[in-house]
Amino acid sequence: MTTLHDPDQRGFASDNYAGVHPEVLAALAEANGGHQISYGEDAYTARLAEVMAGHFGDQAEIFPVFNGTGANVLSLQALLPRWGAVVCAETAHINCDENGAPERVGGLKLLTVPTPDGKLTPELIDRQAWGWGDEHRAQPLAVSITQSTELGTVYTPDEIRAIADHIHARGMVLHLDGARIANAAASLDVPLREFTTDAGVDVLSFGGTKNGLMFGEVVVALRPDVAPGLLYLRKMNMQLASKMRFVSAQLLALLDGDLWLRSARHANAMAQRLRAGVSELDGVRLTQIPQANAVFAVLDRDVAERLRQQFRFYDWNPATGEVRWMCAFDTTESDVDDFVEALRKELAR
Amino acid sequence: MTTLHDPDQRGFASDNYAGVHPEVLAALAEANGGHQISYGEDAYTARLAEVMAGHFGDQAEIFPVFNGTGANVLSLQALLPRWGAVVCAETAHINCDENGAPERVGGLKLLTVPTPDGKLTPELIDRQAWGWGDEHRAQPLAVSITQSTELGTVYTPDEIRAIADHIHARGMVLHLDGARIANAAASLDVPLREFTTDAGVDVLSFGGTKNGLMFGEVVVALRPDVAPGLLYLRKMNMQLASKMRFVSAQLLALLDGDLWLRSARHANAMAQRLRAGVSELDGVRLTQIPQANAVFAVLDRDVAERLRQQFRFYDWNPATGEVRWMCAFDTTESDVDDFVEALRKELAR
Amino acid sequence: MTTLHDPDQRGFASDNYAGVHPEVLAALAEANGGHQISYGEDAYTARLAEVMAGHFGDQAEIFPVFNGTGANVLSLQALLPRWGAVVCAETAHINCDENGAPERVGGLKLLTVPTPDGKLTPELIDRQAWGWGDEHRAQPLAVSITQSTELGTVYTPDEIRAIADHIHARGMVLHLDGARIANAAASLDVPLREFTTDAGVDVLSFGGTKNGLMFGEVVVALRPDVAPGLLYLRKMNMQLASKMRFVSAQLLALLDGDLWLRSARHANAMAQRLRAGVSELDGVRLTQIPQANAVFAVLDRDVAERLRQQFRFYDWNPATGEVRWMCAFDTTESDVDDFVEALRKELAR
Amino acid sequence: MTTLHDPDQRGFASDNYAGVHPEVLAALAEANGGHQISYGEDAYTARLAEVMAGHFGDQAEIFPVFNGTGANVLSLQALLPRWGAVVCAETAHINCDENGAPERVGGLKLLTVPTPDGKLTPELIDRQAWGWGDEHRAQPLAVSITQSTELGTVYTPDEIRAIADHIHARGMVLHLDGARIANAAASLDVPLREFTTDAGVDVLSFGGTKNGLMFGEVVVALRPDVAPGLLYLRKMNMQLASKMRFVSAQLLALLDGDLWLRSARHANAMAQRLRAGVSELDGVRLTQIPQANAVFAVLDRDVAERLRQQFRFYDWNPATGEVRWMCAFDTTESDVDDFVEALRKELAR
Repeated sequence: MTTLHDPDQRGFASDNYAGVHPEVLAALAEANGGHQISYGEDAYTARLAEVMAGHFGDQAEIFPVFNGTGANVLSLQALLPRWGAVVCAETAHINCDENGAPERVGGLKLLTVPTPDGKLTPELIDRQAWGWGDEHRAQPLAVSITQSTELGTVYTPDEIRAIADHIHARGMVLHLDGARIANAAASLDVPLREFTTDAGVDVLSFGGTKNGLMFGEVVVALRPDVAPGLLYLRKMNMQLASKMRFVSAQLLALLDGDLWLRSARHANAMAQRLRAGVSELDGVRLTQIPQANAVFAVLDRDVAERLRQQFRFYDWNPATGEVRWMCAFDTTESDVDDFVEALRKELAR
Repeated sequence: MTTLHDPDQRGFASDNYAGVHPEVLAALAEANGGHQISYGEDAYTARLAEVMAGHFGDQAEIFPVFNGTGANVLSLQALLPRWGAVVCAETAHINCDENGAPERVGGLKLLTVPTPDGKLTPELIDRQAWGWGDEHRAQPLAVSITQSTELGTVYTPDEIRAIADHIHARGMVLHLDGARIANAAASLDVPLREFTTDAGVDVLSFGGTKNGLMFGEVVVALRPDVAPGLLYLRKMNMQLASKMRFVSAQLLALLDGDLWLRSARHANAMAQRLRAGVSELDGVRLTQIPQANAVFAVLDRDVAERLRQQFRFYDWNPATGEVRWMCAFDTTESDVDDFVEALRKELAR
Repeated sequence: MTTLHDPDQRGFASDNYAGVHPEVLAALAEANGGHQISYGEDAYTARLAEVMAGHFGDQAEIFPVFNGTGANVLSLQALLPRWGAVVCAETAHINCDENGAPERVGGLKLLTVPTPDGKLTPELIDRQAWGWGDEHRAQPLAVSITQSTELGTVYTPDEIRAIADHIHARGMVLHLDGARIANAAASLDVPLREFTTDAGVDVLSFGGTKNGLMFGEVVVALRPDVAPGLLYLRKMNMQLASKMRFVSAQLLALLDGDLWLRSARHANAMAQRLRAGVSELDGVRLTQIPQANAVFAVLDRDVAERLRQQFRFYDWNPATGEVRWMCAFDTTESDVDDFVEALRKELAR
Repeated sequence: MTTLHDPDQRGFASDNYAGVHPEVLAALAEANGGHQISYGEDAYTARLAEVMAGHFGDQAEIFPVFNGTGANVLSLQALLPRWGAVVCAETAHINCDENGAPERVGGLKLLTVPTPDGKLTPELIDRQAWGWGDEHRAQPLAVSITQSTELGTVYTPDEIRAIADHIHARGMVLHLDGARIANAAASLDVPLREFTTDAGVDVLSFGGTKNGLMFGEVVVALRPDVAPGLLYLRKMNMQLASKMRFVSAQLLALLDGDLWLRSARHANAMAQRLRAGVSELDGVRLTQIPQANAVFAVLDRDVAERLRQQFRFYDWNPATGEVRWMCAFDTTESDVDDFVEALRKELAR
């Protein structure tokens, strides 16, 4: 096989458009050769458990999986009885982008709340957290938050702790969708556990793919006693990799060292550079304060259309002209500068 | 990250214990770099569609997925209405090894039939294929066969055609679980389409992982009109890889050339060498005629236990002392010879 | 067994609190005795099909079931592929009062829209009806409306036709939750088919329980070709009555004659009497225009609490002090007058 | 409405073909009138709880439902985690006659065992009760037995206790499908609790419909601590009757007194009379020892066909010519005698 694409072309469409970090690719080669027990009893998965315990505490149990939707559905099924419901933001990935997997595969009901910035608060949660004991209502027994959010914003550790305390007092549990958790940690400049384990999160979907892996996420049970059966749920939900060493080896490359943080910091820095660049332009209005690796802005539809000929990116809200620009571990300063320059030109036409 | 295992150690436990073929690893590197549209609109997936059309016919539609259980559940859901049931062998992977995913995620009922060798026949199928129109009975509307079977046997093209004709005449459709399809093709020494498309198979789970990929299987809709919605089913069943280029690139390495056949032929040849070696030994009784890359035998439990200290392999039926020895693309002649010699010694103790 | 309750006590809590209309009870006795084929091949179900054809057209197919949630889930499953989603009002019974049955049992996603009065419009529907072909989004392929609505309002035939035309043009289908369909017909003073079959409804949940039956609803496939498999879906969804003659006999008592209309007209008239009575009182604000058998009002919480000691009724929105008063086939004029008088006294305290 | 069928015609097809016992019909009338709280907070359901506690012990919790399939699915869902599987006889109603509801709605896997007489034993159970901890295998965590069985046989209390002890020691729980539990109690001539609560059954589907009710079964949690969430499961599985007083009133008529036993004894006696009658005939071979209200026999297909013109009954196994004759609470001695006489004549032709 030969290369079929232009390896020098990058855009701002998604951190999923990026490829694999060279250190991750090297790790895959190092994990190759010979036989290793399949389905997770290999040396790499064992080592990953140790490394994750370093990040999240010794009590943490890990379940590497294929993708983020899988990690979310597994986490929520483990946290909830069959009659449970999940309070989440209307913009949550589990609500908007998973083709109903939480409902259809997970058998869960989502109770959604509109938010200005993708972030829940105790007050917003209370709009759906009621009706316990009423058999007609899907029982709100979990909350799911996304960190960093789908809108590029970041919860502080205190904000998460406030949510956890609030809902734990009501018998509910807390899931964190960490598809971009590294970007949040880089933004907050705190260790991962400060806004997860230590803030009261119960189960975590730890994201690797968007931060330079080929594929691979991990369900991290921070409080394993409230999330039973993940071993079985992973298999029956078709998220159990046979040659799991190759999932774990990637995650080790990311997490047994600081690659996760370096990559996330870089992506965040590129988003800040982009924010700074476009802020100076007339005709662009930022709609969120960029705290991670995404920038959301409203601009003229024709300008957006012409710009898209040069750099791929997505509409976020076609009705309002809002677009999303996403930076990745491999976004370069000149990518950003070229993009800002191109936007400037299009705005000036 | 550094290598944590012994890359020179191999056993006979599973073709899933093997790693990644070097040509596949090279292909992953070649597909890296730059940005590619995620979720399947990349150059590698487009090329894979062409290559698969070469193998299975122009009408074939492909849906790369993560793993075999995913491929099977997607295939069966696409083929069946919500009230459908699947006739399969009692030993089928979908029945024994998927923790109920076809039932729980797929919402399907399996109607199983005991078989001597893992192979269905029209007569065996008829033991469950009845009751259409009776609302109390899950409607038998599909048959699923495995090629090569879980018992290492292989259907001839004629045998598959007989099944397809028989069930099509009854309004049923045919799924083929091809987790080891390459081993079957190598054993039969015919093109892939001769026992799939041309024999009347409707949808196929094409297996890559057991034949030297890191991960990756493909649902191939050979008759797309009878299997609607695979695009949506893949996402909602959590089998949609974001960076799909890396699934497709592996499959291209396998299929755009003869690596698939070389690897499978080699694994089969090693199984034949193993069969020949153990056949000469007293105290070993083969229970199936090995036609692909697996050898099944009954031997003394103590002998098996001692042998297992040197070479990993699995019990197949603890009650009868039956074990399974599986060869992979990377099994060597000396692996086999050493194993036979070790077995000879243990039997002589 | 003897009577354990006071048969002279009635309230305004729910039309489900009422018992069985005497004519329905008589019909049950008349259908008793001897043997009849179970599961729907009895004389009463056959006759019911004829009667329903008279109401809804010869093409209509009927599937008597146990309850309304069952009727809704069956209808929606029949109308939708596994990847389908249903656009509905945020206040819809399927969203609020079925403990997630449409999601959990039906495997469906609900896409909800806030409404002022429980009624959808083409414009409101369009807020969720988009994204066809995008595999990440649950595919909006059906709309479900409730007639009369959960807020006691009623769609005109033209309003339903406008919705049907709008969504049919987009490849979507229309379900009508008719738990209180008789009240709507009585309110509109038109035949049932004028706002169902003739207005473009595809499948209907026809409600009997709230209109004087002991139990029993019917899924009516007005366009059977777009709702396949109801025979099987009813059984697998646990809605198939073995002694179905007793479901059908009740429905015959209701529909083979004008009992359905008499009872609904009466309940509606009682709601109008109640509306008129409370309208004259200071301290009561109606929140919806009562068009069927329900009256919604805001009143002082203490007043409501005291009134509830005499007459049961439910809070609708505890946050705003909104309550719901529901009339049934057996509500009497003096029930209403006593209630209004009691409310007048409490307001005056 | 008028009577549409011949109330004097009875056959041997099913106890579901029979109507409603006159005492049950009377109870329905007595429970009518006035308003009662819906969904189970009525006086009749409260009384039923007391009556059932008398039969099954004070710890028992009851959940009246619509039908037997519903009762079974609820029971099994409450007893099992999402990854659980149920060991049952191949002939079990949950396996053969519920169109996959346990799998599709319950999300459960059934692990079936062939039996000679519809009865499981510890030894037969062990053929499927293994593999705990192996994530690839649906976890066998419950056993379901039917009493009396689908083949008209009856477990002794000791046989059930042996099963319960055996599986409890392995961490499994025991469900009893009591669709015809009254016939079993009548046959054994022991109180209901002797072979349920006292024998170690954990959850019970108590059947009423086949014993003279119009409709209505009850999930009885004999050990409520191992079956959480039945309140919610009943609603989300669409088995919650709004006017529940009419389910409970029927069950009271049956159980608050000895109607349940009288009716079952009568049906059993009629089956014995039938057995005695046909035993004397050449050309009829009984295939099971009739212990409840069913008789199974093999006879010539042509004879069966001609006999069926006069009396309805079902084939049990068309391949062998086995038929089932079922007696009900309303079967008369002359029904049986006429049937035997008719059979005698057909055999003599």
